[in-house]
Amino acid sequence: MLAAFALALTLDQQKVIDEFTTFLAIPNVATDKANIGRNADVIVAMLAKRGIEARLLRIEGAPPLVVADWKSPRAKETIAFYAHYDGQPVDPAQWSTTPWQPVIKDDRIYARSASDDKGTIMAMLAAIDRLRAKKATPSVNVKFVFEGEEEQGSPHLDAYLEKFAHDLEADAWMLCDGPVHQSRKMQIFFGARGVTDVEITTYGPLRPLHSGHYGNWAPNPIVALTHLIDSMRDTNARILIPGYYDDVVALTDAERAALRHIPNVDDDLKRDLALGRTEGDSLNAQILQPAMNLRGISAGHVGAQASNAIPTEAQASIDFRLVPAETPDSVRDRVERFLASNGWFIVHDTPDAATRIAHANVVKLVWGAGYPPARTPIDSAIGQRVAKVIASALGSPPVRMPSLGGSIPMYLFQHGGRTPVIGIPIANHDNNQHAANENLRLQNLWDGIEVYTALFGSL
Amino acid sequence: MLAAFALALTLDQQKVIDEFTTFLAIPNVATDKANIGRNADVIVAMLAKRGIEARLLRIEGAPPLVVADWKSPRAKETIAFYAHYDGQPVDPAQWSTTPWQPVIKDDRIYARSASDDKGTIMAMLAAIDRLRAKKATPSVNVKFVFEGEEEQGSPHLDAYLEKFAHDLEADAWMLCDGPVHQSRKMQIFFGARGVTDVEITTYGPLRPLHSGHYGNWAPNPIVALTHLIDSMRDTNARILIPGYYDDVVALTDAERAALRHIPNVDDDLKRDLALGRTEGDSLNAQILQPAMNLRGISAGHVGAQASNAIPTEAQASIDFRLVPAETPDSVRDRVERFLASNGWFIVHDTPDAATRIAHANVVKLVWGAGYPPARTPIDSAIGQRVAKVIASALGSPPVRMPSLGGSIPMYLFQHGGRTPVIGIPIANHDNNQHAANENLRLQNLWDGIEVYTALFGSL
Repeated sequence: MLAAFALALTLDQQKVIDEFTTFLAIPNVATDKANIGRNADVIVAMLAKRGIEARLLRIEGAPPLVVADWKSPRAKETIAFYAHYDGQPVDPAQWSTTPWQPVIKDDRIYARSASDDKGTIMAMLAAIDRLRAKKATPSVNVKFVFEGEEEQGSPHLDAYLEKFAHDLEADAWMLCDGPVHQSRKMQIFFGARGVTDVEITTYGPLRPLHSGHYGNWAPNPIVALTHLIDSMRDTNARILIPGYYDDVVALTDAERAALRHIPNVDDDLKRDLALGRTEGDSLNAQILQPAMNLRGISAGHVGAQASNAIPTEAQASIDFRLVPAETPDSVRDRVERFLASNGWFIVHDTPDAATRIAHANVVKLVWGAGYPPARTPIDSAIGQRVAKVIASALGSPPVRMPSLGGSIPMYLFQHGGRTPVIGIPIANHDNNQHAANENLRLQNLWDGIEVYTALFGSL
Repeated sequence: MLAAFALALTLDQQKVIDEFTTFLAIPNVATDKANIGRNADVIVAMLAKRGIEARLLRIEGAPPLVVADWKSPRAKETIAFYAHYDGQPVDPAQWSTTPWQPVIKDDRIYARSASDDKGTIMAMLAAIDRLRAKKATPSVNVKFVFEGEEEQGSPHLDAYLEKFAHDLEADAWMLCDGPVHQSRKMQIFFGARGVTDVEITTYGPLRPLHSGHYGNWAPNPIVALTHLIDSMRDTNARILIPGYYDDVVALTDAERAALRHIPNVDDDLKRDLALGRTEGDSLNAQILQPAMNLRGISAGHVGAQASNAIPTEAQASIDFRLVPAETPDSVRDRVERFLASNGWFIVHDTPDAATRIAHANVVKLVWGAGYPPARTPIDSAIGQRVAKVIASALGSPPVRMPSLGGSIPMYLFQHGGRTPVIGIPIANHDNNQHAANENLRLQNLWDGIEVYTALFGSL
């Protein structure tokens, strides 16, 4: 029994906390094979206790995928609820508590995966109990799908969906991961931006040169790189590559209408982040646009290590966020065509001296893989049903986001756009996700239970 | 006896090599107090052997300054010949030989300071012998001044010149350090660019942010920095700050005429350095212009360490090369006024959150000290005499450079422009100065002896 004195918990709530605490106490880094297996087994047991038989789907080298079907005699369709049971690696030195020893402090429970994403699984299990207590059956066939390596980038999710296509067939997917809106309002999202990245290297002299003797004669690779970057993006988030926005599908009327109802948190965030300005439009609008972000830049030395030399090369790392109908290929193509038209000679491997002599401006581009964006119509029938059920469960309508700003591989569940995919996160936004002192605000857990109870029972 | 078989040396040359080898065998890093003292003592002994009494001037904490006056009954003026006896630190692992065990290989002698700058001292000593052998006396009073911490940035040179103003009085200074022209022609230089530097920091959010959720809304400090840099300099060496070149004194007719006679080595260097283009005009012309060089840039992470985040700050390091009549103060003033007029709020210490919130664009500038450029008129009487003496000694006129591209504190010897200062280097340009396998081409040593013999005897 944890912290029953400090908080005025109902008996039901205390039972949830006890079960949750046991679940959170199992270390769950995906690469820790023994413990990740224990987590899967415990989920199977928790479902079995509720009369739902789960099975472990397996692919060589991957944590098992926990799948369970809660069928209903009155159901006409199958809705899959996705969550993940693995968590980010931990650096215990950074934590105030012990990552896998859950502690309740003030209004929150602290543990690795409390919010990302075991809290979601716990809320679903408690929702089953609620429905059972009311002697109700689900309105749809509920399919639970719990992944064990989301925090590693879901390297086998594609293979699972292909190999077990029949087990994983659903009329729609609910992705239950991520945080609610910064305003603490419940939110549902209908898409995610895609992502790709590129490492850019520009070249100066073959060996570092004395900046006095050669400094405004031998080309400086940093200056070449800063001009390359600035040719692609202004300081107001706008990507300057001609035609770059031609690939962007305009927001629908329904998406624009939803956008108007998303609370604006710009001022709060600006204060919190010590920002004297922001780029582009409001945050809500910006995350529906393509983005080019400088992740890093490096050349020569700064500070105490700086010496009066011209470096031999300069490197920058960029990630692009993609919106429909951009793809990693379309971005790569636009960037390379733009740079070539600006006089850059593009290579994909480190150029030799002969190549550097032969071309005035050589740039090496090394692209990451990335994946495309996904978007489900915000006014789709299932989208409207989900929003309505949540509104009636909580007494106020959820924030409806046309898309997350971040990237998750929603496109995998979409099957080329045929299957609607909606995100239904329950965690507080200030949950220290991926960092030390991860936590779940208890009110978010209780709200999550309400939401999933309503969705299972009334969708 | 070193390598007498391999090279056809005269007896005189062999004697020079033997004495030089002994001199080079004494380690000479300025911070190695015991050995640096031994070097000074050996120089005193080598001069004494030639009937010239040297004295060691001392300032607390600094290597001694070796000063000797070789007076002449027929002299009407005193000409100081400066060189330095300390060398750069060594990394023996990088050397093919042992830094302080001189070795002759092919046409060169390899050792730390062989070229920078003990070779110069050796050439002067041998020149004394030459003159003595001819029973000649110097045409001027020759003052030898040998510094022991040039490679540390001459931190006490200013103090020496002030404290021992009487001992160090001269009608003109010959700075005997550095390399001859890349064409292997003897060169003399009449100035050096000044130098100053600045560390620039721009700011993003107070903590790193997820680039998907905040990426084209929270300002990216790298993008702010690249635009700041590009507003100051183009890719063709031109500094874009309005009025920046107003401080530049135009070349005199004599300097322009000299410039036309400097061999153009651009094509050779481009091949050697694998350059597909160069900035601005020819190298010879460029080093007479102000320069802004990016020494380094750093923010976030590139390559394998890159993560999809917006970094909290970005830093760049710049060195400026100054030509008459720029000064470190004038450069600082122009840069800061330009940035302020472009909307930057300039701070010199790390700004707090309140400052970052209060201003849209905050930049921290931390300036190094630096020093001004120096220039002696290329058509001054002493300049013409030096060129004429060298031309008649070697049979062809030396390259006359209005200024070095690099920076040496020539201004200290100028006493506010009253005293002419001319650079007379003898080392080959490909001497691996400051690096492993430093070497002096023997022909440069023999030419150096000719040059100093002529200067001592006929200036």
